[in-house]
Amino acid sequence: MSRKWKKEFEGERSRLNELIFSGGHLGIKRFFALDEQAYHDGALPAKTKELMGLASSMVLRCNDCIAYHIVRCFDEGVTKEEFYEAFNVALMVGGSITIPHLRIAAEKMEDLFD
Amino acid sequence: MSRKWKKEFEGERSRLNELIFSGGHLGIKRFFALDEQAYHDGALPAKTKELMGLASSMVLRCNDCIAYHIVRCFDEGVTKEEFYEAFNVALMVGGSITIPHLRIAAEKMEDLFD
Amino acid sequence: MSRKWKKEFEGERSRLNELIFSGGHLGIKRFFALDEQAYHDGALPAKTKELMGLASSMVLRCNDCIAYHIVRCFDEGVTKEEFYEAFNVALMVGGSITIPHLRIAAEKMEDLFD
Amino acid sequence: MSRKWKKEFEGERSRLNELIFSGGHLGIKRFFALDEQAYHDGALPAKTKELMGLASSMVLRCNDCIAYHIVRCFDEGVTKEEFYEAFNVALMVGGSITIPHLRIAAEKMEDLFD
Amino acid sequence: MSRKWKKEFEGERSRLNELIFSGGHLGIKRFFALDEQAYHDGALPAKTKELMGLASSMVLRCNDCIAYHIVRCFDEGVTKEEFYEAFNVALMVGGSITIPHLRIAAEKMEDLFD
Amino acid sequence: MSRKWKKEFEGERSRLNELIFSGGHLGIKRFFALDEQAYHDGALPAKTKELMGLASSMVLRCNDCIAYHIVRCFDEGVTKEEFYEAFNVALMVGGSITIPHLRIAAEKMEDLFD
Repeated sequence: MSRKWKKEFEGERSRLNELIFSGGHLGIKRFFALDEQAYHDGALPAKTKELMGLASSMVLRCNDCIAYHIVRCFDEGVTKEEFYEAFNVALMVGGSITIPHLRIAAEKMEDLFD
Repeated sequence: MSRKWKKEFEGERSRLNELIFSGGHLGIKRFFALDEQAYHDGALPAKTKELMGLASSMVLRCNDCIAYHIVRCFDEGVTKEEFYEAFNVALMVGGSITIPHLRIAAEKMEDLFD
Repeated sequence: MSRKWKKEFEGERSRLNELIFSGGHLGIKRFFALDEQAYHDGALPAKTKELMGLASSMVLRCNDCIAYHIVRCFDEGVTKEEFYEAFNVALMVGGSITIPHLRIAAEKMEDLFD
Repeated sequence: MSRKWKKEFEGERSRLNELIFSGGHLGIKRFFALDEQAYHDGALPAKTKELMGLASSMVLRCNDCIAYHIVRCFDEGVTKEEFYEAFNVALMVGGSITIPHLRIAAEKMEDLFD
Repeated sequence: MSRKWKKEFEGERSRLNELIFSGGHLGIKRFFALDEQAYHDGALPAKTKELMGLASSMVLRCNDCIAYHIVRCFDEGVTKEEFYEAFNVALMVGGSITIPHLRIAAEKMEDLFD
Repeated sequence: MSRKWKKEFEGERSRLNELIFSGGHLGIKRFFALDEQAYHDGALPAKTKELMGLASSMVLRCNDCIAYHIVRCFDEGVTKEEFYEAFNVALMVGGSITIPHLRIAAEKMEDLFD
């Protein structure tokens, strides 16, 4: 795996978001806007909120959401050691059923630091 | 509701943890120890990890876990404004199905500040 | 059980929604508005969308959400026979783990028709 | 993507259902029969029940179940506009964690109308 | 807590099952019958299947289902030591989010042996 | 499909576990050790605990976890007939949303006996 996954992931994400927006449903558009704003710097810094998004995505076991928040956390300066502590919190909360997702998360994360 | 809930919640929690430990299962004991350590200050501060625990508990919709992490976040100095931002992240990730838990979370949190 | 549950349920719901709104978080407020609009008559009638909300609440196993959509379905004219068909769809999708919620749903629904 | 996915999806589904039935377990067979009957026209029309199945599959985040109910909804005459309203209900109930599934749902649905 | 919970639990369960059956929906009735048969002695003994039902109920975090399978496991001769091993499997699979349910499970189980 | 999936699955699993361990997080390492020990022969035989792990993985709908426990159950001598009874328990508990996972489980299981 090279960082190619990041480019492909983001390309596919954009393509399908546009397909959804082309459907013209106002409620869906507004939800996407609200969702994006939830992670902006505010009373809590973006970094903390992205870590909360990452943990939530891991315990809910959604690989695409995990990949998204790993990239965002990386962009906010989360270090490798911080990533592993975040993974550990998610593993404790969510149990062994999250391990296959932890594997994918660790691989994607390590790749960003290469 | 007065802060009585906190005392009752913590008393019941201790009583039942001891009942579980009296069963003498080593794996369960070790899991409880690992779980507790996951939230200690480390590469990430305890406050950030408790916020991750809170968000995870809200999206997984566990009222007791929410109550526990609200108390712990409060003890780590999370402000009201920070709590609402954390609630918002969990609401966006988890959707309207989390609203009944958000209601309980908000009431318990507001009560701690009274 | 008398229809008292409906009144108490709606009172508690209003009280806690106001407590949440008093927190003043704009994202949360907007989410609540979007959520409410999602069930208005549109390309699909409100009745169909409330039935979708009911089935979703049953398979996600949230008693408060089930109670809310049962009242809304009842207000939209869903009949007893239609309720049982909706319960059956949710039971098939979600399995026996939904049965405790089905029990509560059936009791609340039957009560509305008394 | 061409409508090829529909053919492949249905072929794979049939092949594996037969593999399961070849195991000869009566309970499993009967469950499959009950599940199929749950969506027949009755007090509620098949179209409404398929929309309930679609919403349930989206909030439970099962791509294969989503694909199945999208095809069935399409066969029952659900229009594009109705699909987007159904997607919106599921998005509100299930939150941003459903977005990766919404993307796949929208693509498959749009493809059926091409 | 005295063993009163068992009596009340079983009474409430019967009362509401009858309320559901009085609705006369054939699919629901058949599902209940299939569900009951799934735990009968067969290639796997009832005891093993009840332990599978208990673990599944714990990781899916349904207190009523847990109470039901604890009683059934007890009736099939599951010992205290076996119960704690089953709890441990569920705790490992499901993580700390299952702990509030483990507490309730342990208390109900210990009560049956008193 | 030939038994190649088993080899590839186990290879990938080992590779990613080592990547995770190379991160050096003690809590994660200890969790993995506890998790492994949970399935050893004890008051309950390994076979029973693997069947509990399989049922839990099916109702939580994790394909990798299902594949892992199918291999482990097979190694513990679970017969085809016993597998189908286990599948049936999981199907009843988890409902039709588990069917896509049941399909994959059945194919992998049948392949091990070929």
